[in-house]
Amino acid sequence: MLDVCLPGTGGTVPRIDRFLACCYMRFEGRGLLIDCGEGTQLAVKKAGFSLGKIELILLTHFHADHCSGLPGLLLSMGNEGRTEPLLICGPKGVDEIVKCLTVIAQELPFRIRTRVLGDFDTAEQAGFSVTAFELRHSCPCLGYDVRIRRGGKFDVEKAQKNGVPQRLWSKLQRGERLEGFGPEHVLGEARRGIHVTYATDTRPVGIISTMAADADLLVCEGMFERDKADRARESSHCTMEEAARLARDAGCAKLWLTHYSPALPDPTVCFAEAEAVFPAAELGYDGICETIRFEEM
Amino acid sequence: MLDVCLPGTGGTVPRIDRFLACCYMRFEGRGLLIDCGEGTQLAVKKAGFSLGKIELILLTHFHADHCSGLPGLLLSMGNEGRTEPLLICGPKGVDEIVKCLTVIAQELPFRIRTRVLGDFDTAEQAGFSVTAFELRHSCPCLGYDVRIRRGGKFDVEKAQKNGVPQRLWSKLQRGERLEGFGPEHVLGEARRGIHVTYATDTRPVGIISTMAADADLLVCEGMFERDKADRARESSHCTMEEAARLARDAGCAKLWLTHYSPALPDPTVCFAEAEAVFPAAELGYDGICETIRFEEM
Repeated sequence: MLDVCLPGTGGTVPRIDRFLACCYMRFEGRGLLIDCGEGTQLAVKKAGFSLGKIELILLTHFHADHCSGLPGLLLSMGNEGRTEPLLICGPKGVDEIVKCLTVIAQELPFRIRTRVLGDFDTAEQAGFSVTAFELRHSCPCLGYDVRIRRGGKFDVEKAQKNGVPQRLWSKLQRGERLEGFGPEHVLGEARRGIHVTYATDTRPVGIISTMAADADLLVCEGMFERDKADRARESSHCTMEEAARLARDAGCAKLWLTHYSPALPDPTVCFAEAEAVFPAAELGYDGICETIRFEEM
Repeated sequence: MLDVCLPGTGGTVPRIDRFLACCYMRFEGRGLLIDCGEGTQLAVKKAGFSLGKIELILLTHFHADHCSGLPGLLLSMGNEGRTEPLLICGPKGVDEIVKCLTVIAQELPFRIRTRVLGDFDTAEQAGFSVTAFELRHSCPCLGYDVRIRRGGKFDVEKAQKNGVPQRLWSKLQRGERLEGFGPEHVLGEARRGIHVTYATDTRPVGIISTMAADADLLVCEGMFERDKADRARESSHCTMEEAARLARDAGCAKLWLTHYSPALPDPTVCFAEAEAVFPAAELGYDGICETIRFEEM
């Protein structure tokens, strides 16, 4: 099972009553964080998650509201005693940005590795399989498709048919390769895993629906109300209605809206615009959290 | 009169219930900000002050808890429509630090000027007369002595004795120089102004008392309780008691303690240690504010 949480749901500038948009996912006790604006370290703690467990940080782009909390987060992770290396991925330039921001977070007790991701590049870390995809914003910006893969069930008949000695069964099931045998000799077909797609900041481009096809959850920015569609276009963002259309086109199970304009203190006032298009839409709020389980089978 | 406020009073890492240490001063509607850690833009707004009015930012040093909020603050100032240049002063390296941090705050609608201050260097901006002085921390770090200067009273006898035509009196009083006359020909001796001294992060060095001699207010870090004097020494900080001794030695009118350890959620538990040494000590808290007036004379 995968815990998904939005510790913050605000766009552009933080508000006293709303942290900046980010996403924390936890799988088997290990964490993935998407974006880290000013205050994200507090938002994650307030939501009840651990900074120390983060093993992968994905930055969507390099506007301050998505990455200015990085030095503080890294220092706090260091204060908590982290020594394991940390992987930070993002669009082209992520290495320089991390280098620049960490001039005020020197002497960290752990190593940072950075990795540039391009369109459809993948990263595997801590059980998370991530595919980056290009969004359309005022600067290069990536969406992230996150999957938890799930192998097939143990298949006794298949193991016997393949002549696998019984003493190897449990090791092969755990993924080891021994004496010329591998998991493929004892496991049935891979089962459906868990699938979450994250998209901020962006215009409503079709690739979001393509990536989120069949997702358990699409987290998508819905920064503006319908009345401000012009403003959304000018600033390369989405209205809630546009986000809902993306979810409908994807056929995903659920949509969480996020990254609200600071000029929209109460997003409930225009939620009906999204719900009318996609009834499984929900308004994200700081601390919204859900556990997504593997299908029973 | 000068408004002095501590929008935040925390050290090292932000807490949900405490912003990071900073100081906002307002004189004749214009603002000075000392330090800008993660969340300072929110802390200043919550304390009821304007980001747009800041004309001078003083950075004490370049640990993240004192400067990581800079990109977000600058962007918010830009969003509020600022176009006037902004002066940022700090220890050696301030130019590179500001350049690095603003890689995520590009396209600001105003120009940033930076200025390195050394020991006893002064800066004059927006009515604030600032003198930097070196503190003793784990990295180069500056305290700031802030004064609001006050000219002499208009002296009719002196003006007549100097033969100043009456039509020039009010202009000379406002500081203009005309027809060979200046303010010195119509004003009495300069009167006592307003004097505030700010010192974080530091060991309790004597220069703090020297600078704060006769100050209306000393704002000084008191990060630890007496029991943690070793920890204070190791990390180059002060206990509350040490800060109180500095205030007593200075003979200043008042002391505000600030920059509390995140491990000290309730600083009242050890305040008696400071008060016993310096009865005019006060525990700073987020939003503490005072208006310091010119003496009647």
